[in-house]
Amino acid sequence: MSKRNIYIDNIDVELALEKYFSEISFDFKSEKISVLDSVGRVTYKAVYANYCSPTYAASAMDGIFLFSEKIKEATEVTPVYLNENDFKYVNTGNPLDLSLGDCVVMIEELIELEDGNFKSIKNAKPWQHIRPIGEDIVAGEMLIKSNHKILPQDLGALITGGIKEIEVYKKPMVAIIPTGDEVIDIFKEEFKEKSVIDCNSYIFSAQIKEWGGIPHIQEKLKDNYNEMKKKLKELSKNYDVLVVNAGSSAGSKDYTKNVIEEIGEVIIHGVAIKPGKPTILGKINGKPVIGIPGYPVSAYLAMDIFMKPLLEKMTNIFNVENFIEGKLGKSIVSSLKHKELVRVTLHKNKDEYIVMPLARGAGITTSLSKADGILEISKSVEGIGLGERVKVRLLKPLKEIDNNLVSIGSHDIVMDLIGDSIKLCSTHVGSFGGILAIKQRNTDIAPIHMLDEESGEYNISFIKKYFPSEDMMLVKGVERIQGLIVQKGNPLNLKEIKDILEKNIKFVNRQRGSGTRILLDYWLKDENLDYINLKGYDYEVATHLDVAMAIKNGTAEAGLGIMEAAKIADLDFIPLAKEEYDFLINPEIKNSEKIKEFIKFLKSDFLKKKIESLDGYSLNKPGEVIEIKCSR
Amino acid sequence: MSKRNIYIDNIDVELALEKYFSEISFDFKSEKISVLDSVGRVTYKAVYANYCSPTYAASAMDGIFLFSEKIKEATEVTPVYLNENDFKYVNTGNPLDLSLGDCVVMIEELIELEDGNFKSIKNAKPWQHIRPIGEDIVAGEMLIKSNHKILPQDLGALITGGIKEIEVYKKPMVAIIPTGDEVIDIFKEEFKEKSVIDCNSYIFSAQIKEWGGIPHIQEKLKDNYNEMKKKLKELSKNYDVLVVNAGSSAGSKDYTKNVIEEIGEVIIHGVAIKPGKPTILGKINGKPVIGIPGYPVSAYLAMDIFMKPLLEKMTNIFNVENFIEGKLGKSIVSSLKHKELVRVTLHKNKDEYIVMPLARGAGITTSLSKADGILEISKSVEGIGLGERVKVRLLKPLKEIDNNLVSIGSHDIVMDLIGDSIKLCSTHVGSFGGILAIKQRNTDIAPIHMLDEESGEYNISFIKKYFPSEDMMLVKGVERIQGLIVQKGNPLNLKEIKDILEKNIKFVNRQRGSGTRILLDYWLKDENLDYINLKGYDYEVATHLDVAMAIKNGTAEAGLGIMEAAKIADLDFIPLAKEEYDFLINPEIKNSEKIKEFIKFLKSDFLKKKIESLDGYSLNKPGEVIEIKCSR
Repeated sequence: MSKRNIYIDNIDVELALEKYFSEISFDFKSEKISVLDSVGRVTYKAVYANYCSPTYAASAMDGIFLFSEKIKEATEVTPVYLNENDFKYVNTGNPLDLSLGDCVVMIEELIELEDGNFKSIKNAKPWQHIRPIGEDIVAGEMLIKSNHKILPQDLGALITGGIKEIEVYKKPMVAIIPTGDEVIDIFKEEFKEKSVIDCNSYIFSAQIKEWGGIPHIQEKLKDNYNEMKKKLKELSKNYDVLVVNAGSSAGSKDYTKNVIEEIGEVIIHGVAIKPGKPTILGKINGKPVIGIPGYPVSAYLAMDIFMKPLLEKMTNIFNVENFIEGKLGKSIVSSLKHKELVRVTLHKNKDEYIVMPLARGAGITTSLSKADGILEISKSVEGIGLGERVKVRLLKPLKEIDNNLVSIGSHDIVMDLIGDSIKLCSTHVGSFGGILAIKQRNTDIAPIHMLDEESGEYNISFIKKYFPSEDMMLVKGVERIQGLIVQKGNPLNLKEIKDILEKNIKFVNRQRGSGTRILLDYWLKDENLDYINLKGYDYEVATHLDVAMAIKNGTAEAGLGIMEAAKIADLDFIPLAKEEYDFLINPEIKNSEKIKEFIKFLKSDFLKKKIESLDGYSLNKPGEVIEIKCSR
Repeated sequence: MSKRNIYIDNIDVELALEKYFSEISFDFKSEKISVLDSVGRVTYKAVYANYCSPTYAASAMDGIFLFSEKIKEATEVTPVYLNENDFKYVNTGNPLDLSLGDCVVMIEELIELEDGNFKSIKNAKPWQHIRPIGEDIVAGEMLIKSNHKILPQDLGALITGGIKEIEVYKKPMVAIIPTGDEVIDIFKEEFKEKSVIDCNSYIFSAQIKEWGGIPHIQEKLKDNYNEMKKKLKELSKNYDVLVVNAGSSAGSKDYTKNVIEEIGEVIIHGVAIKPGKPTILGKINGKPVIGIPGYPVSAYLAMDIFMKPLLEKMTNIFNVENFIEGKLGKSIVSSLKHKELVRVTLHKNKDEYIVMPLARGAGITTSLSKADGILEISKSVEGIGLGERVKVRLLKPLKEIDNNLVSIGSHDIVMDLIGDSIKLCSTHVGSFGGILAIKQRNTDIAPIHMLDEESGEYNISFIKKYFPSEDMMLVKGVERIQGLIVQKGNPLNLKEIKDILEKNIKFVNRQRGSGTRILLDYWLKDENLDYINLKGYDYEVATHLDVAMAIKNGTAEAGLGIMEAAKIADLDFIPLAKEEYDFLINPEIKNSEKIKEFIKFLKSDFLKKKIESLDGYSLNKPGEVIEIKCSR
């Protein structure tokens, strides 16, 4: 153990803490606990869903379940009459057998006839008011990031995703050591005249509990050098942190410093703070040992200044502020009939918080665990426009939110991997949406994979087209295989895109603007196929996993997507093309620390190993920077 | 039980809660718990100290203890030499025998000679660096108000004041009742396909714990009207609150409403909030029963909107905001050597928070429990001027601070009684300080008792003198007997003021500007006595209890004060005069609700009974308003 002591009489608080933390090697331990006991604890690893939610296609409304085909022609002039053989009554949440229908119509939208039958004057689309399997949660999807303090609302996603046990950071065990001959503990001893009552040990205990540690008050130490030496040595083996509280007698303070010096190291002694100046920051056996002055006011404040950040560092627990002001990143329409509580995510853009509304359906548990805050829209407001300033009630500590790297663009499973290692706030709007977000400077990065129909080149020609007068920066990501996701064993024997049309297969499509959709359209055009003949071309979902889940549950028979999604859902996959999934960077922050850290992560061995464990991915210089010079 | 149901489909949230709370008769129960378990709980009654702190006269420094008389003449030119018979070495905190000395001199201030003796070149005053008994806490003084959420730092004052047990509000017991045939609990049952996993019960449980209740999840109720009726009846007997969580099936929601209607009362059904609209607010057996919708997002938010304020109402627990801006009410000088953390109280003046620094000594435990917040003065700042804007870290919820009635002026035990019933922020600066505070509009009320030496009239002539051009309002308070506080049994046989001088008695005085001091000076002048001859005229303390404690511990033999202080300290009392302790009101707020409430309290039977139980007090129309018209 080094004996190098730094006696700085009056070092600044911030400097003292920085110096101290740099000399401690934090050894983070984890433990598995029941999800039911996990609120307030911090996740050690990311948590992935075991089950989908809903686990079956379910009715989203009270009404009737039928084939949309039946009322395809219904209008006020040409009503369609339905008798009880045409439909089945369903309530909200009821499982639906998709061989018996493909949409739900609300009772209010039908006209009941005297014979108990119905008249419909309105048509319906397939999937109307049906919650597909996995609408909320898809098995295998990340539910909660690592290093996140678990909130009551997170239990929703965790339990719904079938998680019963969770790995969290262990709480640090803190030994509180009162010293001083004249100190008495009125909870253990009789009160004596001319004695000092120890209140500090109990204040420390309450503070440490609040800050996420487990406090143990030790037997009082007499003012005896050798006894203290023996005791501190012993405690440093069994505890994560020691706090020695000096008695008010002058001698004991020096004992503490000298003992730490002899069996460990005093790193800081004397900080420029009042009260609290004589605080000692040291270590014994690698464990932090803090010597706190005796007067109760100094003691309380010194704990607040030194112990609190130490425990924050050891537990990753930060306090939640109450409210924050931000700028709305997407307009919201609300009704004058009620006050509305919108779940939002937050990210910093320049010096401002951008407030993005999340999915508003009450069935989406993950909108709670994903939410950084809640935006209240009062009854008298009909909506809030893009760019308006709003006040958000925070659900997470700002420290968790502040360094988020903002990603708006195409979805890929790689984004989940990145999000667990880098603080990421990721929105999935497809490649084209990503390009727009960069144009409006609403995002830090935009993951894109866009095939130029003419050149066959990925991404670069699109960037040149949309940013003709700017120097842009593209960072290489991963190569991934796109192909057909089909049922297990490929019973329909599908081999290429044209088989889908020829065999009249039920297809599931990705949303307009997504790279996968562009790829499909490119192939259809390339082979002179008409999308009008593609059954399910209008059935749009937002992610690769959603495509796989639709096939898994029989809603569709094939879809275009990536190999890893097929694997997660235990389906078959027919590879068709290799595509380039890269990151377009917001030019204003291309030299920032955030982006440097992101590029460093893309080049890391850690990511390399993770990617290699996924099916259908390969690496082609991830993190490589391509400068795309302005063409004018 | 009334069957009056109000079906308002879309009532505003605020209105719904107000209506609901007005229909519930809250029955607050208390329990006694160990102080060690009390953090986060709310006091049911005010808590008074059992012991003084310090319990003995103690050294405040490391140094030597001696009679100040010895070095009275010491200067650089006429040094005084001290040998070991002249003093005793003492450390900070050591008990002092006041028959052996009356001051402490710091070692640094002495010049050590080769023979081990000292040379002093500076004189010292009696009581220099001595902490008198009760400097921090006086036995019988109020430590913590009722209705206060106990913080870690409050343990300091409580334990130091000798409190081991404390009476707090009981935590409300909340029964959580899941319903619905399709709902399964994965912690108790096997997961089944096509079932809905119950996460709500566990989210509710975590929320209720956070909000200070004790949650008990009940067995799931089947969708059966009679079963629900039986169960809710039974639970309403053993729990303080019931929450029924509707399954997602359409039927169960109606069961809940109908059952509450049959065996209790539905007060609100349907609130203008999204999500959360179908919430039911009712009561059974006088107990609040809340029906919460089934979708997790609606459920979480409905709990936040309806259950949280209900539990706040039942527990008096509010959240602490983080920071507040305010205006400094008194300038602070700080050192460039260190960052300083100043404990402050806060009160609202017009629309602004006024920040008042508390005593800065590290030995004053009560400066922690009295503090509303902490003001950080950075190292680079030498001080902050009166009226400057500062940022304060809050220690208490703003709701606890906001309605404080601000009192600056004379101290009386009656102020403690008022402070326990009315939210009071009381600073003791003497009657004259109170007059000044009203002049500067820094306070709401100023308690004063000032005898006009010419007219013999109390208060009114002083007010006319200091506010010659304003209409002022004085509210009558109490009459109290001032007299001599003397040792038990009055061994020195003191009868009137002049005895003190004639018998060369050690006196303890009140601070300049206090009404009691004015009274003493009046009497001295009246009897042609010279204060120069009064031993201890310069030994000033701030409250009546401090006077009594100085006599109790032998520091003084007599002092002027009120009868109740003598009684608390178990001393004798010689009544000398009856004085009028009244309240001068800030003219700007004389018609405010705060002042009306204060006057109402002064007139109350409650205060009357309390005052009658005190010795040496009488009532002469308390709460009577005297308008003092401007004389110009």
